Amino acid sequence: MHDTSDSPIRLRRIRGFHVGGMRRHVDGFPVETRARTPGDAPVTVDMNGDHMVGQLYATHYQQTRRAYALPLLLWHGGGLTGACWDETPDGRPGWLEYFLRARYEVVVSDAFERGRASFPACPQILADPPEHRSLNAVWHHFRFGAEGAYPSGASARDLRNAAYPGSEFPVEAIEQFGRQFVGRWAGTQEYALQAYAALLRETGPCVVIGHSQGAAYALQCARRHPDLVRAVVAIEPALALGEQPAAVQAPHLFVWGDFIEGASRAWAHYRAAAERYRLALGASGCVADVLDLPAQGIKGNSHMLIMDRNSLSIAQRVHDWLARIAR
Amino acid sequence: MHDTSDSPIRLRRIRGFHVGGMRRHVDGFPVETRARTPGDAPVTVDMNGDHMVGQLYATHYQQTRRAYALPLLLWHGGGLTGACWDETPDGRPGWLEYFLRARYEVVVSDAFERGRASFPACPQILADPPEHRSLNAVWHHFRFGAEGAYPSGASARDLRNAAYPGSEFPVEAIEQFGRQFVGRWAGTQEYALQAYAALLRETGPCVVIGHSQGAAYALQCARRHPDLVRAVVAIEPALALGEQPAAVQAPHLFVWGDFIEGASRAWAHYRAAAERYRLALGASGCVADVLDLPAQGIKGNSHMLIMDRNSLSIAQRVHDWLARIAR
Repeated sequence: MHDTSDSPIRLRRIRGFHVGGMRRHVDGFPVETRARTPGDAPVTVDMNGDHMVGQLYATHYQQTRRAYALPLLLWHGGGLTGACWDETPDGRPGWLEYFLRARYEVVVSDAFERGRASFPACPQILADPPEHRSLNAVWHHFRFGAEGAYPSGASARDLRNAAYPGSEFPVEAIEQFGRQFVGRWAGTQEYALQAYAALLRETGPCVVIGHSQGAAYALQCARRHPDLVRAVVAIEPALALGEQPAAVQAPHLFVWGDFIEGASRAWAHYRAAAERYRLALGASGCVADVLDLPAQGIKGNSHMLIMDRNSLSIAQRVHDWLARIAR
Repeated sequence: MHDTSDSPIRLRRIRGFHVGGMRRHVDGFPVETRARTPGDAPVTVDMNGDHMVGQLYATHYQQTRRAYALPLLLWHGGGLTGACWDETPDGRPGWLEYFLRARYEVVVSDAFERGRASFPACPQILADPPEHRSLNAVWHHFRFGAEGAYPSGASARDLRNAAYPGSEFPVEAIEQFGRQFVGRWAGTQEYALQAYAALLRETGPCVVIGHSQGAAYALQCARRHPDLVRAVVAIEPALALGEQPAAVQAPHLFVWGDFIEGASRAWAHYRAAAERYRLALGASGCVADVLDLPAQGIKGNSHMLIMDRNSLSIAQRVHDWLARIAR
């Protein structure tokens, strides 16, 4: 067990960069006259021409003295960005600071069409409009409380009372959490996987911790790039039914929170798919562990267990597993 | 003159967070059935409900031992994000690393509707679609070369030959620069200014370095929040004609690159507006300096002088000015 509370973070470099994607020539934008700033002269806006499409954004925090050989890649879930590993909605340090203080080299990224990765023109490149998740939808989908029970604009006390009893999510700060949401497109998986492949080639052999959609991408990348993905921590992967592990050797850890059985059909379905995947991995001789938090006596975790009130004790367990498999 | 090339960056905390914005209830989204992942069961997507609108995203790099009392806020220009202060398109350290190594507390942000700040639903909240800048448009608007002369897909040599002679922009890496571009909306200035005000209240008294649209916001915030903005470095501000300084006391530095006179009507116009503003500031007793790079014998800088090949020597001059006015 290492003490991470007060040690400074010593970095050799902070490399922020984009990687992946391709040049695409786009025609068919109408040429318009717009005033960019009120009071300013209107300018001709002609968007036709070359655009870069498909890249992702990453920040590589390079340690002065790293404690672990492989860099640790943090991949966010759907409708979020790399900011989900930052400070929690209620203002506590997140997993980024935790793993930096533990002297991992950490790479935080924004997937294709999310955050600083940028989204391409719609409908010229992505046909459909994006989905913007409401707090109402997230309330039950992320298992803070029952469907339809989100109390808009309620006091901290009423938010707490509306949540599942014993919820570890800081529901009082749900509006601060909502500030993190970004639009997301459907059907962009192949773009995202290509960009992650470019990131893996940039970082070299690594460990990936993925959350939700990011965990599903991590599982796919472990199959596609077995030379580069050396271990996977899949936190509540949003896995499509029927996905099968191929010839994978990297150790895998699956992490699950609370309120799944009986409360969330969607997550019961995802967990069943992931558990089949995990058992198939194990049968092929791969380390395929599960950290089922309620089964370990750790109750109350939501889908956002990376920012729940006990988030750093879960980070500690992930760190312990990584230390164990590295031996 | 301080040596920043090799010293490690020692941080007490890396605080990534969202600030500003408000809860907005949105009705009128059609309720649809979508498959999020190919092969997965379609789900009902109902976006109606509460959404957070208007926030920005910031990362506050807190030094273990800071050399300067006031934090330094880096505000990006239009169509870009805080990533513009990261590594340059040709892979050199950017202004973020420069000022961190000089032991400033640095706050990098993504303005409203850009990057991790997220854009709200369109047309439900922002009526018009965003503008996506092409490499063709940026080629002359950012003064890499003459209008219409961008050679799509050309070799490094042909890109260099097509650029203005002596251009300091790394034109060979223009596609890597294009990976940074994000969609931008017009008419969102008041949202952006409110979010910057929230950021200023969060950081307290500070120095703002703004680039382009971010510099125009910095000038406005210096007027609106004279207690919080203690100095402004306005790099090529995209200032509307007719803006007047009010009762401002904070020292200001205006920075200009090359290829303005004779080559760029847009930037000649912006510089004329900014020069009138600067002279009015000076007449009111304020320090209102200008760093006109070509007039100092430093030729070849583009609008993106923060990532030009001589970008760190310009950062050094800004640092020297900040040290001088702090005395």
